[in-house]
Amino acid sequence: MKISPGRRLAAEFFGTAFLVAAVIGSGIMGERLAGGNIAIALLTNTIATGAALVALILAFGPVSGAHFNPAVTLADWMEGGIAQNAAAGYVCAQILGGAAGAIAANVMFGLPAVSISHRARSGGAQLFSEFVATFGLLCVIWGCSRAKSEMVAFAVGGYITAAYWFTASTSFANPAVTIARELSDTFAGIQPHNVPGFIAVQLAAAIVATLLFRWLAPGLEQRAKDVVVSHSEKD
Amino acid sequence: MKISPGRRLAAEFFGTAFLVAAVIGSGIMGERLAGGNIAIALLTNTIATGAALVALILAFGPVSGAHFNPAVTLADWMEGGIAQNAAAGYVCAQILGGAAGAIAANVMFGLPAVSISHRARSGGAQLFSEFVATFGLLCVIWGCSRAKSEMVAFAVGGYITAAYWFTASTSFANPAVTIARELSDTFAGIQPHNVPGFIAVQLAAAIVATLLFRWLAPGLEQRAKDVVVSHSEKD
Amino acid sequence: MKISPGRRLAAEFFGTAFLVAAVIGSGIMGERLAGGNIAIALLTNTIATGAALVALILAFGPVSGAHFNPAVTLADWMEGGIAQNAAAGYVCAQILGGAAGAIAANVMFGLPAVSISHRARSGGAQLFSEFVATFGLLCVIWGCSRAKSEMVAFAVGGYITAAYWFTASTSFANPAVTIARELSDTFAGIQPHNVPGFIAVQLAAAIVATLLFRWLAPGLEQRAKDVVVSHSEKD
Amino acid sequence: MKISPGRRLAAEFFGTAFLVAAVIGSGIMGERLAGGNIAIALLTNTIATGAALVALILAFGPVSGAHFNPAVTLADWMEGGIAQNAAAGYVCAQILGGAAGAIAANVMFGLPAVSISHRARSGGAQLFSEFVATFGLLCVIWGCSRAKSEMVAFAVGGYITAAYWFTASTSFANPAVTIARELSDTFAGIQPHNVPGFIAVQLAAAIVATLLFRWLAPGLEQRAKDVVVSHSEKD
Repeated sequence: MKISPGRRLAAEFFGTAFLVAAVIGSGIMGERLAGGNIAIALLTNTIATGAALVALILAFGPVSGAHFNPAVTLADWMEGGIAQNAAAGYVCAQILGGAAGAIAANVMFGLPAVSISHRARSGGAQLFSEFVATFGLLCVIWGCSRAKSEMVAFAVGGYITAAYWFTASTSFANPAVTIARELSDTFAGIQPHNVPGFIAVQLAAAIVATLLFRWLAPGLEQRAKDVVVSHSEKD
Repeated sequence: MKISPGRRLAAEFFGTAFLVAAVIGSGIMGERLAGGNIAIALLTNTIATGAALVALILAFGPVSGAHFNPAVTLADWMEGGIAQNAAAGYVCAQILGGAAGAIAANVMFGLPAVSISHRARSGGAQLFSEFVATFGLLCVIWGCSRAKSEMVAFAVGGYITAAYWFTASTSFANPAVTIARELSDTFAGIQPHNVPGFIAVQLAAAIVATLLFRWLAPGLEQRAKDVVVSHSEKD
Repeated sequence: MKISPGRRLAAEFFGTAFLVAAVIGSGIMGERLAGGNIAIALLTNTIATGAALVALILAFGPVSGAHFNPAVTLADWMEGGIAQNAAAGYVCAQILGGAAGAIAANVMFGLPAVSISHRARSGGAQLFSEFVATFGLLCVIWGCSRAKSEMVAFAVGGYITAAYWFTASTSFANPAVTIARELSDTFAGIQPHNVPGFIAVQLAAAIVATLLFRWLAPGLEQRAKDVVVSHSEKD
Repeated sequence: MKISPGRRLAAEFFGTAFLVAAVIGSGIMGERLAGGNIAIALLTNTIATGAALVALILAFGPVSGAHFNPAVTLADWMEGGIAQNAAAGYVCAQILGGAAGAIAANVMFGLPAVSISHRARSGGAQLFSEFVATFGLLCVIWGCSRAKSEMVAFAVGGYITAAYWFTASTSFANPAVTIARELSDTFAGIQPHNVPGFIAVQLAAAIVATLLFRWLAPGLEQRAKDVVVSHSEKD
């Protein structure tokens, strides 16, 4: 059965909202409880984010493909898996959902609904880290395109769990999440003027990874619709 | 083969008992060993709960659907997946099982069988957290309804693992577990007069999430019986 | 193709050896590195054990059924899944494999090959914990008997991960592992005169759980051979 | 569709690069944040490595078989799963990819691109640990050869997660990763003159495990091509 555009956008909105709430909320909780040990705070942040991704991709994947990420939507559009108008709608829903998730996290922890982050995340090492993080994320997504669709949830959850620790930037790897993290002056935040640089390298990395897999796994275009967008239409 | 009501109730009883034993028992052990670092205590509590959910849903799902949660049973009844009498039985079995699990945890750790908790969990941030936690849980369950049934175990385990950290209430999200947690004056406890508020928002969130998915994933009613109740009858 | 008894016994030997090496070895490493924080030591012990179980059950399950545990072999024999002679062989292979694993762990960490443990694990709370732990383990195994066989690995890994924390005894739940743990005077050890009590309640719990599931999931006997012993013969 | 040799080598290159980046990068991050608690540093190192393995094997498995490890390629060649020339190419791609991953990790964390490690890892206990670690890894891989191919990712990820803790050497178990770890004078490093000993026992263990499974699971040779090399050709 065909899934209407409104339903797809709602799925992207709620999925991205929960993803951002998990990222920011667990950052707040982790930092509050960790007694100053940043490794423990980041570990709890990591486990919450990775576990949330598994759950959310399994849950919303059948409706919208569970992009939750403009870089993924861009890559999917490059391979013809999603039309341009639909892609624009996805990105809007992701950004709005991310903002809603940031606000929800702030309110759940008794903070002001919005507080602009002052956390600096800049410099070449950070930007190179975001390039590597997003390049790897898209490699994992395209690489899983021949596997069973449920496996994407575990692969992406596993990848982000690892990338929190093996990149110096803790792997944002997602423009919508990056924008939303501006809205919380807490552990997972990022100050606004560092955001454009992050987004630029994230999108560049998504393009490079997609071009790589266009060669590495020929025939990807034919599978793109089924793999990245939605598995439900053929049910 | 048809599974008799008595067997289904026994599965809900034992499943909820082990779930509550895992929640309370790991809270006791974690707090005892963590040397005052609450993040470490909650992390061990989280890992035990998430891992137990994966095991218990895989094990009891084929018999009873592995609700273990009156909010899930309410949602399932709304969609016609379970009859009213059966649902009432499920809720009783869950509450009794939860109490048995709390007592078992207390006894395993050499504490009195029952000790009423004095741990305050109140205020708007806590109640909003429980709303978000339960809303997300039901989204994940309904969202997985088109996936293979084994995936529900990983999605729910992953979701609760995350929600322990991204909600200020550590995500009870379950009226039977909330009631049972009154019975242990330990790390995972909740004082009795905070319980009604928790349960009210949990049930409200389950209703809202179910209405959302009635629109988001049409045709859910036809699948409800297979997905949430029991996969065995068609085996 | 039929798998010969010798191959089955070798699989039980190596699987139990690696399981015990994981339990004891990670206990030594965890305690050495944790700087006195026992929660962190037990957490690393837990994660290593749970992850090892997933790997070992996936790897050796197709050859021998991946019992690695006399209590599981007893339960399987009760349901007619394994003949009496074969069961006796399994138990011998498990005990010998467990001892080999303990020795390997000791040697890997530069300790004497065998050192008898002085760690006391006694009292009613400990014994009740072992009953609950083993009862739950067998519930999980029998409960998964209708699911796909790969799921057993994740269910057992998840269950033991949780039970390390929700039982006061850290869930030995396995007579062969209990015997092997005598052989290392380290974090995961147990002094010899506490062993018989542990084994008695473990076997009792396995019997009770098996009787429960004989009622709860009728038709288990027909499935027992496929589920608990070996999935390969029908390949 | 036949996958060309160049694509296979590229998959081995990128997969091994990300694996090594995960090992070294998370080691740097973990040590920096852990405040001197080595157990916490190693725990974050472990979780990142295990999670990365799940993601990378799922992603690159369909292209190249996701060896990322000369010991695995050697074992596969022994069973006729890969031709000699192709195996030599795989090993080169793995070593180059590993070096690229080490450099990427160093640069991401603002360190010199290459710094030779001074970390001593020697002695009989370390070498015996590497033998056990690699022997177990190959047992897990060959043991999973009858299971569904996706399960290999979880089995290997679970095994390495455990082996980081139950071996005294933290389970390198991979000659290409061992060579790459020379190139970073950080937490996960190894000084060059300890490398030949590690590689020798790793290869010996791979050979012994492969011979064991030649007996334990007859018929492995026929399955070797499908299982270890690539699942895509039959799609």
